[in-house]
Amino acid sequence: MYRSHNCGELNISNVGENVTLSGWVQKSRDLGAMAFVDLRDRYGITQLAFSNEKDAGLMTSAQKLGREFVIQATGTVIERASKNKKISTGEIEIEVSDLKILNKSELPPFTIEDETDGGEDIRMKYRYLDIRRNPIRNNLVLRHKVAQEVRNYLSNVDFLEVETPYLIKSTPEGARDFIVPSRMNEGQFYALPQSPQTFKQLLMIGGVDKYFQIVKCFRDEDLRADRQPEFTQIDCEMSFVEQEDILGIFEGLTRHLLKKINNVDVAEFPRMDYATAMKLYGSDKPDIRFDMKFGKLNDVAKNKGFKVFDDQELVVGISVPGCANYSRKQLDKLIEWVKRPQIGANGLIWSKHNEDGSFKSSVDKFFSTEDLTQWAEVVDSKPGDLILVMAGGIDKTRKALGDLRLHMAETLGLRDPKKFAPLWVVDFPLLEWDEDSERFHAMHHPFTSPKVEDMHLLATDPGKVRANAYDLVMNGNEIGGGSIRIHDKNTQATMFTHLGFTEEEAKKQFGFLMDAFEYGAPPHGGIAFGLDRLVAIMGGQEIIRDFIAFPKNNSGRDVMIDSPATVSDEQLVDLSLKLDIKK
Amino acid sequence: MYRSHNCGELNISNVGENVTLSGWVQKSRDLGAMAFVDLRDRYGITQLAFSNEKDAGLMTSAQKLGREFVIQATGTVIERASKNKKISTGEIEIEVSDLKILNKSELPPFTIEDETDGGEDIRMKYRYLDIRRNPIRNNLVLRHKVAQEVRNYLSNVDFLEVETPYLIKSTPEGARDFIVPSRMNEGQFYALPQSPQTFKQLLMIGGVDKYFQIVKCFRDEDLRADRQPEFTQIDCEMSFVEQEDILGIFEGLTRHLLKKINNVDVAEFPRMDYATAMKLYGSDKPDIRFDMKFGKLNDVAKNKGFKVFDDQELVVGISVPGCANYSRKQLDKLIEWVKRPQIGANGLIWSKHNEDGSFKSSVDKFFSTEDLTQWAEVVDSKPGDLILVMAGGIDKTRKALGDLRLHMAETLGLRDPKKFAPLWVVDFPLLEWDEDSERFHAMHHPFTSPKVEDMHLLATDPGKVRANAYDLVMNGNEIGGGSIRIHDKNTQATMFTHLGFTEEEAKKQFGFLMDAFEYGAPPHGGIAFGLDRLVAIMGGQEIIRDFIAFPKNNSGRDVMIDSPATVSDEQLVDLSLKLDIKK
Repeated sequence: MYRSHNCGELNISNVGENVTLSGWVQKSRDLGAMAFVDLRDRYGITQLAFSNEKDAGLMTSAQKLGREFVIQATGTVIERASKNKKISTGEIEIEVSDLKILNKSELPPFTIEDETDGGEDIRMKYRYLDIRRNPIRNNLVLRHKVAQEVRNYLSNVDFLEVETPYLIKSTPEGARDFIVPSRMNEGQFYALPQSPQTFKQLLMIGGVDKYFQIVKCFRDEDLRADRQPEFTQIDCEMSFVEQEDILGIFEGLTRHLLKKINNVDVAEFPRMDYATAMKLYGSDKPDIRFDMKFGKLNDVAKNKGFKVFDDQELVVGISVPGCANYSRKQLDKLIEWVKRPQIGANGLIWSKHNEDGSFKSSVDKFFSTEDLTQWAEVVDSKPGDLILVMAGGIDKTRKALGDLRLHMAETLGLRDPKKFAPLWVVDFPLLEWDEDSERFHAMHHPFTSPKVEDMHLLATDPGKVRANAYDLVMNGNEIGGGSIRIHDKNTQATMFTHLGFTEEEAKKQFGFLMDAFEYGAPPHGGIAFGLDRLVAIMGGQEIIRDFIAFPKNNSGRDVMIDSPATVSDEQLVDLSLKLDIKK
Repeated sequence: MYRSHNCGELNISNVGENVTLSGWVQKSRDLGAMAFVDLRDRYGITQLAFSNEKDAGLMTSAQKLGREFVIQATGTVIERASKNKKISTGEIEIEVSDLKILNKSELPPFTIEDETDGGEDIRMKYRYLDIRRNPIRNNLVLRHKVAQEVRNYLSNVDFLEVETPYLIKSTPEGARDFIVPSRMNEGQFYALPQSPQTFKQLLMIGGVDKYFQIVKCFRDEDLRADRQPEFTQIDCEMSFVEQEDILGIFEGLTRHLLKKINNVDVAEFPRMDYATAMKLYGSDKPDIRFDMKFGKLNDVAKNKGFKVFDDQELVVGISVPGCANYSRKQLDKLIEWVKRPQIGANGLIWSKHNEDGSFKSSVDKFFSTEDLTQWAEVVDSKPGDLILVMAGGIDKTRKALGDLRLHMAETLGLRDPKKFAPLWVVDFPLLEWDEDSERFHAMHHPFTSPKVEDMHLLATDPGKVRANAYDLVMNGNEIGGGSIRIHDKNTQATMFTHLGFTEEEAKKQFGFLMDAFEYGAPPHGGIAFGLDRLVAIMGGQEIIRDFIAFPKNNSGRDVMIDSPATVSDEQLVDLSLKLDIKK
């Protein structure tokens, strides 16, 4: 038996007990006549006490312990002289009578502390040491708890977790698949699922009625910062439902999680249609923890002799609270910020709404106080606020101002990680035009049902058709998205046609689903949450990497195990493959 | 709203209520003036009633409904004239006032009944229809329940579910890996995990303390019947434990599952060492629901002038209860059975232990009544039993007699699927000699710790070294297996040497783990359960395919989606690969 208790459970009520603990040496303090060792495990830290007077031999052993040594200590729980009120074990210590080194440790390449001196790269290489640190370990605990709560909540309302296959078939629609050569089927390949979409629809056709699965999904994308080639979804589907049923169930789940895990009560989630979200926030995932809604200034800012505005599709502004006192330098920095390639704006116009009600703008030459007063009304600014205005093409300008809005909120501390502001964004367009391929792509995916009332536009003006699709947005992040699906073969065939599939292609890739629609497919719909992001946001952060036990870097590498790697020639021969390296 | 209730929840207490149900037409009976439709969903069947008198139009619509049509019916719950006591909804029916066809159905290619007319192949192709059948659906429900219970049980005793990566690195040890070409790392490959073994060990080094994960694993093996290229493990690991701790926890889990799911109480699991299991049952996964232990007959059957026995390593028999009355024809069939290539025995000797205490054997010429009486004592036969004896090399003969033992038990109905007889098999050999490669292989895996008391044999007689390894066996199936792991670098290096790794190979493949051992690795060990098989056995069956939503066939194909399949040339070019088909 390696231990009678863990390092987080002993307290004043255990005084006098003989106990055995095992764990890692967090740190030791040698006071000459006495020595103290902080013994750490997943559950906490317990202080071990040694003294020359009691046992000089043990004292010598204790003095030789290095950081991260794995030891086993037996002794008596005693009350501490100087108590540490910050930890639950802080009132006691162990007067050690027996000490055993279970394993030594080299000096770790970075400190195992909440604030470590290790950089990102070294922490990734030694991820197993990084996981010993409280912040990372707590993230994994949080992730476990969230997953457990999701499973229990959904199971309690009759959802079945059903495992769908990982070795499926490659379909070119959407992102790139990871493919897996089949040895037994020469020249053929499986693909790893980008999502279990078609399988969960087949489960609905199979009468499973309510399905969920916490499942790994895979996308071979050029990785943007904080994207992972493998990621985890909470994947859900229900039969005999309309959009309202889905929103109800999963709003309930989200509210339950926030209450149970974060102890936060959230009111009914607001709903916002896609068009409004784009108009007011320049984003389909608005952060509504704070205001700063867009105000469209075309009517009051164009045709006043300021050429920069006159020719543009959109002139639009926000009112940044309490920033009227920004210095010239601060304003210049903002202008630089929006001109960076990531934002790509041509410039930024500002107007200070001074405390005394007067205005001072970067365009005083062109706009009168009356004009600027009108601006202030449109963007709903108050004395003391700073009005920021951008102009240009609608989509690009909205995007840029949306980014600026978030930046200002960040700067002002308005993106409070302890505050949760979920909302539903609904009525997404069914299709979006892709300039590169000169055809429509499915905005959600090809199985999303058009809104009945827009069906008549599908043939004449497909870009105008709205979908029965919805996103759950929280704190400026999409944490879930879904749709009511098509469940009849004809609509699905029409959809494939609009997406540029030939009948043959559609049949080759999705024939099994089209066939299944012939045998009594029920109306159905679903949603998928990104577990990595959900957990990160619930943990008050936005970097998903720190909420994944063994993440990959931006080149898709696991630097700890050094993967991917070359394989043997025999393996390739078995798979009937040859490398074809481009030099 | 598609429904107010599901098809399994209405009963006599709902009489008079106006309800809406949705589901599939299970069957309909047209009695001329009246018609009845059985409406089915996941939860049950509710009878819909139509009559010419009440509504001739509706009656006509009802008469046109085909099997598996998806419909929505609104009406009043009324008490049935002729009640069906077998189902919970059997006392009521719905007097339908409104009927809507939500989707039509072609005639399914097989009947959606508990006993279907569909063969294996057609059921696999239309798996979504097969899932509508109660037996398959109930298996999926059972699987969900087992997984939920496992998660809740382990979470309650401080285990954390941690997701380990699916895109890892290929290691030639063990079975073949499925590999995944990396586009971003030209000429390099990921591998899909055969198990999360090294990652769970790294989690222990990372201080996670108690880990589990229900996780897909992958093996590119030539598939024997009822093996799947992707399968699910309940993967577990604990720190600061000895073998006894692991057996305790997971015996508790297994007992909990049997109680909670099957409502069966199981006593403390017996322990049997590997050597005993092989000696008494000819198998390391003995089915102990019944007796028929092996009796070694060398001393009483050799050197009696019967050449067939004299030259053999082992003469061994079992006593089959109550089969002394087997006819010549039945005995000949048994002899044929053991001579089939799957068993590969040269023959079978029998001795009937008659009700009157006399013996009649196939070798009466060579053996006296005294001899046969001695046989009977060794194999513990009683009057009325049939003694079956085989002879040959130890391993092969034990294997053959073990198979025969199971066959006899099957024939006699002794393999009761409602009875659960778990046991621990312990003290496995650490290494097994492989004739092909002329070297030792790890019997469990290369990370398994040798028994301390056998360590001295590692250099001199490695085949004799026993491992701290254990299997959980139930009803003749291995449902779990694990070991205490090596946690120091030197032992691990020695182990790799014994397995024929050069230092360089060991470093290339497992360098990250060897490195990790340098930074304070705790003593640790674990176990993995095969979820597919566990669920099958708990469901009273042994075919895992019926407990997997979308299984693959013996060629690793998913015949429903027709995968694996060819991919486009562009995909291969992106991955710097060329096909190299052997013709």
